[in-house]
Amino acid sequence: MKKVEVSASLRYDVLIGGGLLESLGTELGKRLSPSKICIVTDSQVAPLYLDRAKAALSSLAPVMAFVFPAGEASKNGGTYLALLSFLAENGLTRADCLVALGGGVVGDLTGFAAATYLRGVAYVQVPTTLLAAVDSSVGGKTAIDLPQGKNLAGSFYQPSLVLCDIDTLNTLPEDVFRDGCAEVVKYGVLYDPALFAHLAERGLGFDREEGIARCVELKRDVVAQDEFDRGQRQKLNLGHTVGHGVEALSRFTVSHGKAVAIGMAIVSRAAAAYGLCSGATRDAVLAALDRFGLPAATDLSAGDLARAALSDKKRAGGTVNLIVPAAIGDCRILPTPVEELEAFLEAGM
Amino acid sequence: MKKVEVSASLRYDVLIGGGLLESLGTELGKRLSPSKICIVTDSQVAPLYLDRAKAALSSLAPVMAFVFPAGEASKNGGTYLALLSFLAENGLTRADCLVALGGGVVGDLTGFAAATYLRGVAYVQVPTTLLAAVDSSVGGKTAIDLPQGKNLAGSFYQPSLVLCDIDTLNTLPEDVFRDGCAEVVKYGVLYDPALFAHLAERGLGFDREEGIARCVELKRDVVAQDEFDRGQRQKLNLGHTVGHGVEALSRFTVSHGKAVAIGMAIVSRAAAAYGLCSGATRDAVLAALDRFGLPAATDLSAGDLARAALSDKKRAGGTVNLIVPAAIGDCRILPTPVEELEAFLEAGM
Repeated sequence: MKKVEVSASLRYDVLIGGGLLESLGTELGKRLSPSKICIVTDSQVAPLYLDRAKAALSSLAPVMAFVFPAGEASKNGGTYLALLSFLAENGLTRADCLVALGGGVVGDLTGFAAATYLRGVAYVQVPTTLLAAVDSSVGGKTAIDLPQGKNLAGSFYQPSLVLCDIDTLNTLPEDVFRDGCAEVVKYGVLYDPALFAHLAERGLGFDREEGIARCVELKRDVVAQDEFDRGQRQKLNLGHTVGHGVEALSRFTVSHGKAVAIGMAIVSRAAAAYGLCSGATRDAVLAALDRFGLPAATDLSAGDLARAALSDKKRAGGTVNLIVPAAIGDCRILPTPVEELEAFLEAGM
Repeated sequence: MKKVEVSASLRYDVLIGGGLLESLGTELGKRLSPSKICIVTDSQVAPLYLDRAKAALSSLAPVMAFVFPAGEASKNGGTYLALLSFLAENGLTRADCLVALGGGVVGDLTGFAAATYLRGVAYVQVPTTLLAAVDSSVGGKTAIDLPQGKNLAGSFYQPSLVLCDIDTLNTLPEDVFRDGCAEVVKYGVLYDPALFAHLAERGLGFDREEGIARCVELKRDVVAQDEFDRGQRQKLNLGHTVGHGVEALSRFTVSHGKAVAIGMAIVSRAAAAYGLCSGATRDAVLAALDRFGLPAATDLSAGDLARAALSDKKRAGGTVNLIVPAAIGDCRILPTPVEELEAFLEAGM
């Protein structure tokens, strides 16, 4: 097992290892003393892990469960309000806690409910997808989608514990695991040539415990510097400003990881075309994505992607902050004027 | 004009005086540089002040308005989600800001939307009721109601400015003004014998600019000590734990201020009966409420009020924290075991 300590407005541990789900009760009980616990999970994860999570927690306090239909479409205001009402109906108080058991959708939604129910109750992240393990479960960004776009409402709200049982990744369909790999590759491109080299060499067979722990450390360091996303944390959006557009315009038929891979590929090609990075850097990014079987292109037009990016919440006034590679392990924030965005993206299509 | 500076996670000014609405644009422009401004108000306030607020802001940035039906019933998840969608639809970014023009419902709802839209945008409170001026507009508590009870979801999120034009209080129906007086009396009972004496003597004719500024100072001092409501800030709930029950059980036909007055009266009588304060203190509270024409009794039973209080979010585990007077200007937090609550309230009916 690996332990990564995160220092944000709340200090907490991220535990990563095999078989950890059995220790959920012990680890939670070291940190919190709830009189009730509500597990939040979705219809895909519940049949696999809900009973084991309940059993692990039942010696601590009565456990209830809120299960919603799996998928990004559930990460909306309706599910959020239904969850809040469920908590109120079951009499959860500020002394109690939520457990997010699942992927990014479960974690984001549960975190936002925890941030706002009674103006804040404790919560624990138990990521069961690679994407949630390396990205959404750490750092305290919580969110729901609005009809107008992804993650348009939410809070910064840190969990009290993140417990990642890497055995749960074994039940992921390969395609979903691959999806998470896009975020892992992202950390290599952003910060770590050694991680990048390991990934480019091993592909899907990379060392999971080491690799996840390294991504979490890298994210932890960014969050410690910039918890509220006013500066360097923006870099974690490498591939995301374009990727969110790909997801939305495909009506979420293109998954988050694949959309991010496409986004990374487009900004890398555009960066090389604009002389912001070398052709070798561009090719290394494209080769790594290919090694994982991730896509690097889309049928959508640069104009469509530019228009979608303009509704992204990262926009501040008349510019959109794109994240572009200068070299592997060294990326830059590029404030792009709204009127130049389409041409820049066109160079990367 | 009086200026009270508040130091919480954000430093901001509360400006109180006549004719201030005309300076809204100037004062906002000193503190924020939005490229769009959204005024949020209700159907009662809009005909009175929306055009003047728009005019005062129009030199700064384009101004749009979200107007919802007046009343507590609108402070719900549906209005909240509709407001978020309105902001997204109109392309507000993190550089922009919201203006809450109205009473407590408008302020609480707008504050919660500001706290969570794009994970936080700036907002300004322009209270137009006495209740909002002395209480809900200062201190950063934002909320919506759930079907299960009042203020069950929300955030702690400070405004960038509070601007209280006391002339707007002149258009309040006397009954609504009287409602706000319950909160003003509350500050006297909690912290300030001199303020209490002034109120008991002058009744509805108390000095508005002085009185409001004093209440804001008192609240400011509490919020500076305990922004996140883990200790002394709980005292501001004097009359509220019972009052929220009166409101809910009457299906909001009893207004907030009158419900709080009833709550203060009940806990004062109960405190005297239990020997926690003198009969003279109890009588002083009851006389002051009477001086303002505020009610001191309810037809509801102690059992009903106790059950309602158990769903209040102030509850932590097996006790409910009631706030009770020891003397005028000196109140205590009384953690009351759930099973003793009904008997305590019964002594105050």
